[in-house]
Amino acid sequence: MSDTTYAKGLEGVIAGESRICKVDGEQGRLYYFGYRIKDLAANATFEEVTYLLLYGELPTVDQLIDFSDRMRKSRDLSPPILQMIKAFPRESHPMELLQSTINFLSGYIDHKIEHSPTCNCRQTLHQIAQIPGVVAAFYRFKNGLDYIPPRDDLSHGANFLWQLKGEEPDPEDGKIMDKCLILHAEHSFNASTFTARVVASTLSTCYCSISAAIGSLFGSLHGGANEKVMAMVEDIDTMDNVRPWLETALEEKRKVMGMGHRVYKAKDPRAIIMEDFLRTLSRKYGETRNLDILKEVEKVFREKMEEKGKPIYPNVDFFSGAVYSLLGIPSNLFTPVFAIARASGWLSHILEQRSDNRIFRPKALYTGDVELPWPVLEERS
Amino acid sequence: MSDTTYAKGLEGVIAGESRICKVDGEQGRLYYFGYRIKDLAANATFEEVTYLLLYGELPTVDQLIDFSDRMRKSRDLSPPILQMIKAFPRESHPMELLQSTINFLSGYIDHKIEHSPTCNCRQTLHQIAQIPGVVAAFYRFKNGLDYIPPRDDLSHGANFLWQLKGEEPDPEDGKIMDKCLILHAEHSFNASTFTARVVASTLSTCYCSISAAIGSLFGSLHGGANEKVMAMVEDIDTMDNVRPWLETALEEKRKVMGMGHRVYKAKDPRAIIMEDFLRTLSRKYGETRNLDILKEVEKVFREKMEEKGKPIYPNVDFFSGAVYSLLGIPSNLFTPVFAIARASGWLSHILEQRSDNRIFRPKALYTGDVELPWPVLEERS
Repeated sequence: MSDTTYAKGLEGVIAGESRICKVDGEQGRLYYFGYRIKDLAANATFEEVTYLLLYGELPTVDQLIDFSDRMRKSRDLSPPILQMIKAFPRESHPMELLQSTINFLSGYIDHKIEHSPTCNCRQTLHQIAQIPGVVAAFYRFKNGLDYIPPRDDLSHGANFLWQLKGEEPDPEDGKIMDKCLILHAEHSFNASTFTARVVASTLSTCYCSISAAIGSLFGSLHGGANEKVMAMVEDIDTMDNVRPWLETALEEKRKVMGMGHRVYKAKDPRAIIMEDFLRTLSRKYGETRNLDILKEVEKVFREKMEEKGKPIYPNVDFFSGAVYSLLGIPSNLFTPVFAIARASGWLSHILEQRSDNRIFRPKALYTGDVELPWPVLEERS
Repeated sequence: MSDTTYAKGLEGVIAGESRICKVDGEQGRLYYFGYRIKDLAANATFEEVTYLLLYGELPTVDQLIDFSDRMRKSRDLSPPILQMIKAFPRESHPMELLQSTINFLSGYIDHKIEHSPTCNCRQTLHQIAQIPGVVAAFYRFKNGLDYIPPRDDLSHGANFLWQLKGEEPDPEDGKIMDKCLILHAEHSFNASTFTARVVASTLSTCYCSISAAIGSLFGSLHGGANEKVMAMVEDIDTMDNVRPWLETALEEKRKVMGMGHRVYKAKDPRAIIMEDFLRTLSRKYGETRNLDILKEVEKVFREKMEEKGKPIYPNVDFFSGAVYSLLGIPSNLFTPVFAIARASGWLSHILEQRSDNRIFRPKALYTGDVELPWPVLEERS
């Protein structure tokens, strides 16, 4: 590129090397450190995937027991944190709370991370382990309910449902929740992960970097698509309305949420797994309306797009909102659930960034004035 | 660049257009919206510069009165914020508090910003106006002192000194503080400003974006150079020790802090102004030791570098720490003071980013594995 051309949003520009995640859009495959998402979702726990993301390799039995134990023992929130969550403005979004709390947390951990490339954040896992509790506590306080302490006999996903609802989740539900977190744990460079890396590149702390990434994920162009899919389902309301609703949407050039993906040209492999979870839960709870409407949207929309020669597939957001709803998660917590999962990916990128670091300091193309004469205040108009 | 080459840290890569700030490294000039820093520091208040940064033009008399009035009326911290600052872990760094508080603040403002490209943050100036109070309150609480409410008859800079110390600053000191903030208000794309733009590009809120930028500025490769300059002065201790200290530092290839700049090949125009402030204050308070040592470091280091054919000049950080010390600011608040000033620049960039937005989503160059077979947990070693 010449001195005055550039790619808006750095589209197509390589910002760094990474061994963490490969998205093979052509074949519809996703890998974390070389392992297929299909294998990870079928065989691993979220804690195992977090280990993989932080250490770059799968744990042995002993390593996994030790690591899970450390994560589980780091779950409980201290009284000052609970007080801070209680005091947090009720009208605010849980993502604002989350961004704020991560910094607050950092001051209370025993092993304060070192402000250096070799920080000890693989040991102090609070910034991953405590996010579910923070989200659950905020929701409960807002609804006049008490804090539910974590249980260390439950997986990361199952414990979130426990802390949210105060009821032990059905084992299958807990497992599905845990696997939903696996599906969202990592997805290479995107705005929030890139934010985490930029902040980490200054040698700021992991907590400060993750807090910043949460701020990014909060943006309506980033997190929140599954919430919008559910709003669409509500708006469509009945099976009969799918076709006319979509026709109007296409006419008015409105975006159909959860369909298509910038990178995946084949079906998003996470969507296939998520659809399975939705089928399982829909059957179990005898609530198939969301599933039915979604499948009809997929069918009609693909039909319409194929007429235009544009094959299009659902992405992970298309089914995840309906899954979360059946697990009893309110829709304003969907983006926080994304953050619960992605914290592991962010930390993986922070560690990788520091292992071969250069501070991010791109150039701006200056298009403004120079050498303006100073106008005396009283003479300005 | 080809598909596999890239610039580490995006060095030399244009990440976007900007009309806000030009750094002319060759001539040693710095412009905010076309006006020279020399003119701004000589003639404007920090509030006037903030107006320029947020609106892209200088205010008229009436506009400035109205704007300053709004900023001053937004200064006071509400009881829940004060409570949160009190509860914040004492051992933590004020930058961690600041990053956390910005999100907390957002929930309490009357005109909640809209989560959209056209947010009303030019009206709700809390994220600029309240930072000095947060920094001052944290410092005072830590030292067992009470919160000092702001005074709206003082400039932004003078009021910070008032809230920090509870004594009305000498008018000249207040003026110098205000002008120090002007010198640090903006400096084009760097890691923290770029962070603010990346977060803003997701259409996250201004507060979330500024919070993230604070996380970046906290990094030891970014903010904090002036703190290190002062540590160097302490280490050198006497005039006689300047030459041997520098010779050892050069031998051991240690970086001499505050000298040289990535962009400025001539003298940093802010350093010239900052040196004037240091002379004025040193004479006034009869404390010339820091000034004397700094000037000797400058002289000897330039001499040494000129021998090697590398002319080198002091940058703004070289003198600012000594100025802040004479104004009674403790050294662990130097980076927070940087944040107090730069908040205006960050908000300017956030508004500009949104005015012609595309989400930042660069590519990663994948260097890892694919298609690893899944190893059964029990068989891993």
